[in-house]
Formats: sequence, structure tokens, C-alpha cells
Amino acid sequence: MSLEISRMCAAISPSPTLAIDAKAKEMRAGGRDVVSFCAGEPDFITPAYIRDAAHEALDMGLTKYTPASGTMDLRRAICDKLLRDNGLHYTPAQIVVSNGAKASLYETFAAILNPGDEVLIPTPCWVSYPEMVRIAGGVPVLVEGSPEKGFVTEACDLAPYVTERTKALILNSPNNPNGCVWNRAQLEDIAALAVEKGFYVVSDEIYEKLIYDGEEHVSIASLGEDIYNQTITINGMSKAYAMTGWRIGYTAAPLAISKAMGSLQSQIASGSNSIAQYASVRALTAPQGEAEIEAMRAAYDERRRHIVARLNAIEGIRCMMPKGAFYAMMDVSGVFGLYDGDVEITDSMTFAAQLLEHADVAIVPGKAFCTEGFCRMSYATSMENIDKGVERIARFVASLTQKA
Amino acid sequence: MSLEISRMCAAISPSPTLAIDAKAKEMRAGGRDVVSFCAGEPDFITPAYIRDAAHEALDMGLTKYTPASGTMDLRRAICDKLLRDNGLHYTPAQIVVSNGAKASLYETFAAILNPGDEVLIPTPCWVSYPEMVRIAGGVPVLVEGSPEKGFVTEACDLAPYVTERTKALILNSPNNPNGCVWNRAQLEDIAALAVEKGFYVVSDEIYEKLIYDGEEHVSIASLGEDIYNQTITINGMSKAYAMTGWRIGYTAAPLAISKAMGSLQSQIASGSNSIAQYASVRALTAPQGEAEIEAMRAAYDERRRHIVARLNAIEGIRCMMPKGAFYAMMDVSGVFGLYDGDVEITDSMTFAAQLLEHADVAIVPGKAFCTEGFCRMSYATSMENIDKGVERIARFVASLTQKA
Repeated sequence: MSLEISRMCAAISPSPTLAIDAKAKEMRAGGRDVVSFCAGEPDFITPAYIRDAAHEALDMGLTKYTPASGTMDLRRAICDKLLRDNGLHYTPAQIVVSNGAKASLYETFAAILNPGDEVLIPTPCWVSYPEMVRIAGGVPVLVEGSPEKGFVTEACDLAPYVTERTKALILNSPNNPNGCVWNRAQLEDIAALAVEKGFYVVSDEIYEKLIYDGEEHVSIASLGEDIYNQTITINGMSKAYAMTGWRIGYTAAPLAISKAMGSLQSQIASGSNSIAQYASVRALTAPQGEAEIEAMRAAYDERRRHIVARLNAIEGIRCMMPKGAFYAMMDVSGVFGLYDGDVEITDSMTFAAQLLEHADVAIVPGKAFCTEGFCRMSYATSMENIDKGVERIARFVASLTQKA
Repeated sequence: MSLEISRMCAAISPSPTLAIDAKAKEMRAGGRDVVSFCAGEPDFITPAYIRDAAHEALDMGLTKYTPASGTMDLRRAICDKLLRDNGLHYTPAQIVVSNGAKASLYETFAAILNPGDEVLIPTPCWVSYPEMVRIAGGVPVLVEGSPEKGFVTEACDLAPYVTERTKALILNSPNNPNGCVWNRAQLEDIAALAVEKGFYVVSDEIYEKLIYDGEEHVSIASLGEDIYNQTITINGMSKAYAMTGWRIGYTAAPLAISKAMGSLQSQIASGSNSIAQYASVRALTAPQGEAEIEAMRAAYDERRRHIVARLNAIEGIRCMMPKGAFYAMMDVSGVFGLYDGDVEITDSMTFAAQLLEHADVAIVPGKAFCTEGFCRMSYATSMENIDKGVERIARFVASLTQKA
């Protein structure tokens, strides 16, 4: 028969961020001093107390297979964390440790979706959500968020999109790419809708520790027994502990789901890195953990206020103050219709492309997040880079002209 | 709609080895001195020179995301290894590093299979192959190996099973669970069949370094340009370098396949552990690597000859001499029909269950590998354990009676 690749794989959209990223790297390799705001990860390296635990694991020879769903020590530490931080009661059997939260998400969809099942995704959203849903056989249903509501999509916004095929909703608070945070009342309404209509909530809480201005992170599964039984909570070590490279994510779910995911993972991936699991226990349980996280959070907070103030000082640019994560969404629609040389700025893609080409600044166009008119700036970078990059953006915007 | 788990997940067969394994652990926890021959991993810890590299990576702060398909350094080291050891020419763009060879295999099937596509699997086979094929939407077609041929399924045995829907064949030489090795002539015939009929060969070569009695490991992709273009070679660090817990596997494939797998992996899992990738480069390139591998191989070789000789000295038991990996398949059909107390030994499952219950020895029944009449013994354990376990098996077999 034919040696073509699978239809599923052939349909995977290439990431729109990849083109920008590849171009930026090429320019850097050619000697240009590109300032990048594209990073989706902390600029900090993993705190020393966590790396120390990894040294110990290596010296102890913890180099063998762990149970496919994660070591009992790590699953216990995760249960303790979920109770302490989130008011959530889980047993180790309800926890599946995966090769990063991305794998946790994919396995969640594989565990709950049948072909044609619909998944509600408020936009702007992380680029991988719609793709993962499709790969797992589902149908992503994008629900457009409104800038006026700070992109917080509420139950009343979601309700019109609920059908007989709605199997799940993806919640991501604090949010990538726009930093918005759903409050308790908004989550209570969403929980009520999910329980009434009978769909799962996949709650991606990877940015929970990066939250500002006294905002409260609320885990939707903590809002009652009914919604607890319909929620898969996703979290991991990457963002809070600056452990992106270690690849440790996890799910907390009703037992039937965690069992299904455990079986699936045991057949398609086996367990996660043994040394990283040992270090993750230390990250979650060591007394200095909270202080280390808080120091990084405080640094992001300072940068956040600085970058948003500076962006808003640029005529033609507006930027909402994010409440969480380490991203700001810059509204660039004010310069649409203007020209950079003979190229018209028509959308976020052309803005980002011209900015990179002529001002040596890399940002991610909103299109990558299923939205338009905005570009995402990560402030997981130094104040020096923020100042240098924002000055270049200001000069670039000022240089745009009414005609080609 | 209903909150049931997906039909795909619901259909995943629980591993028949899990019941034995759980029982053995329970017995140990209860204070019984169980000897286990179930392990699918080296009993050695990772050599010090590789763990040293991981210490360095931690000290350098290599704790961030790597490219989703693996670091360029590791992909280059893999290309060098494939050329040096296997006579295979690949570029880094053709390599995808995954979270263990199990993930490499699953992503391979996801990349090539459409629903209903058939995959030929010679048996006995590793328990995860048929499940992975099913999870990826394919249909496993088991081709029963014959003990008379040492379980080496040849092209003439496969040909009758090839249909219009045959998309791939899984080859696993050296083999888990029976340690057989396909020779060059046998692989040439299989390559000719694959090229003539137009199906992929998924060649799982994870045990290539564990090979004995002067046998030669041949990579089927090295047998000509046509078969190269139809082969996905799977390998990883786990077995040769005693790095099971690190979770580093990889594929080498035609560019269209590696691109599809890279896109898929970037959406469903992202990259592998950064520290493990750095250590894997050291494993593959350090001058002492060959000597470290050889020392472990020599230890397995000694145990292999010892365990097979001792098993064959038991009346009613027969065991072929394996040529590779670290498994022996013990033929237990000679005692079928005998009784352990009032329980009749009717198949590999009852043999393994009664042996564990009454002789405190854990082995894996052949049923776990889609075959009957045999049980798998891993000799990745100490000579002391081998002697103790085999003595118990001898006593157990001698105690069986003609009647209940």
C-alpha cells in the first residue's frame, strides 16, 4: 500500500511561532542582536536546592524505571501540595505523573474523547490546545474572548456553544497568552454549567504560582463534589519552579480517568525521568521552596509593571495589565493600515514580521493564539532586555508611515 | 453528554504481567523472600562516566526546554553512532529524540497508521506492540513464530499475512522476550518482501548491544536504499547503557516521517529531559563507553549460559539458548497436566501463578507475549539470585503430581 504518513499527522498545523523563532535564530546566527520576547519559560535556572536533590539522586543510583504513573513519593507529595495550596483532596491513585504538562494534557484528551466529541476552548488560547484535541480525535470549538472583559470568558459566553457533543471545556487560569485570571464567582458559574450540561473541565493550572496584585488562584475542582468529579486538574513543575527542561507534569482526576490515563501512559510512554521525579519531591516539600518561588514571582511582578507602563507610553500601542503568568498581550491594531516602507501592517503577523526584520525584536503574533489584533510579549527576560526591546518597538512604531 | 472514558482507552488490555508483579510486591511487603526474574531492565546502575555528565549539566544550569525533537548535540551524536555501529547514514533532521523508545514507537505508529491499517507482528512479542498499534488506530496482525525456527519469523512466514492493508512490520532483533536474532540473509529476504509489497519496517533495535556467541547485529535499513526509505529504526539509551530511568529513546527515519513525528511530538509531549540528553551525548561519545558496555554484556553472557544450563537440568523443563537481549524463554509445556496440590498446571499463567504462590519465584507467563507453553526469565539479575531461583523452580517442578 502507499507509504504516506497518517492523515492525522498530515493535518497537524505547523506552529505559527516557529517561523518567527527560526527567523530570529537565523538572524542571531548572522550576528544580529535580536531581543526576544518569545520565550514561554522562566529565564531563571532551576533553584539550587532542587538541583542538589538531583545530584543526590545520581549519587544514589536512582537510574532505573519508576512506576509508569510516577513514584509513590512524588504522587504523595503532589497530593499534599494539592491539599495545602488548592484545598483539593486526592489520593496517589488519582495522580498520573507525565513527561511534562503537555503530555498530561494530551493523555487527558486521549482518555476522554471519542471521535467527533467537542471541546470548548476560550480564545486567545495556547496554540497546542486545539491541535491536541484534534490529534485525540476531538473537535475544538473556539469561543472568542472579548478584550472588554479582559478575555475572561464566562459561563454566559460559553453556554451558547454547548451542544450534545460537548465533552469538555479547557480552562487556563492564569492564562497563557494574556495573563487574565478567572475569579471564584466566575468559576462557580462555569462549574454550575459544566455540572448541568455534563461535560468535563480540563483545568490547566500550570501558572498558578505566578499571580499578582493580590489576585487569588482558585482551583475549580475545589468548588464542590459535583465539579470535582468532572474536573481533570493539570499542573507541573515547569513554570513555578523554573524546571521546564526536567519534563515533569501531572494530572489529578477522578479515579476512572486516572486509571485510564495510567494504562494509556504505560503503553505509549512509560514513566518520567527518575532523577527529575526525585528532584520534584524536593521542590514540592523542602522548606525553602515557598521563598524561592516568591523571589521569582516578585521579579516577574516588577517586570510586568515596567513593561506594561512602557508599552502604554507608545502612541498607537495599548496593553492591558496582566494578573498572572509572565505574558502581556499588546494591542497593535492601532497601527493597522500604516506602512513599514512599502509593506502595509495589516495584522499581527505582518506587525511581528516587520518588527523582527527592521527592529530586531521577536514577539509572537496573536494568530498563534487564535486571536487577532494583539501580539504576545513574554516578560520572562531581564529588565535590561525589556528596556532595549521596548525602545526598539517605540522607534519602529514611530517610523511607520501613512503611505507606502 | 456522558462522562465515560474514551472507547480507545477503555479497550486497552491491562498488562498480564502487572498481576504477577503486583502479587510479588505484595508478598515481599508481607516479608516473603521472592526471587524475581521479571525485570525488563539492567540490574546495573548507570555507569559513573554518564552520571558525571549529568552532574555537569546540573552545575551548568542546563535546566531549560530543549528543541522538541532533541538537542542538536544529541542528534549529531546519534547520527555518528548510527554510522559507526550500524552503517547507517542519517542527518540530524531525520532523528527525533523521545521520552524513551516506547514513546518513539508510539509516535512512529501515530505517524504512519490510518484507521484500519494492518501491522505484522511476529510472536512472541513485547506486550506493548499490539496495544500501541491499536491505540494508534491500527490493526495488529500476529504472525506466530515457531519454536523449531528459534522463533525467527522469516519472509516466507510473513508473506501469507501481507494484504492490501499491510502498512508495517515490527522487527525486534535481538528479541524480547526470547532472545533470538535475525541474521543478514533473513533480513535481506524480509527487506525484499517489504520493498516488493510496499510496507514500512519498524525496526526496534534497543537490544543491539546485548548479543552473544559472535552473532552479528544487522540493521535492516543498512541493506539498501529501497529498504532504507521504508524503515524507521528505533533505539535508545536504556538497555545498552543501563539508563532505563532517564527516558531517552530515538527514531531514525526518512525525512517525511521524522518531520511528521517532530510536529506530533511538539504538540503532544514537547522534548525530553534536558539533563538526560546531555548525559546521553556523553554516553554515546566518551572513549570509555565501549568498555563499559562490554563489561555489562560479558556479565549477561555469563549469566545466560549459567541459567540456561541449570534450567535444562530440570526434568520437564527445556530452554533454548538465547543469542541476544537478557531474556530466556523456558518451555514449561512438559509439566502441563500435572498438579500443584489440587491446582492443575494447564498453561503458562497457571504455572507462573503457582510458582509464585508456592515457590516464591516470579516469572512472566508467555501469554504476556502472545504465546503459550513458555515463560520468560530475565537474567538481568545476580548469579546468586539465579541459583536461588532456579533451585526453587527445580523443587517446585519435582513436587508436581499426576493427580490432584
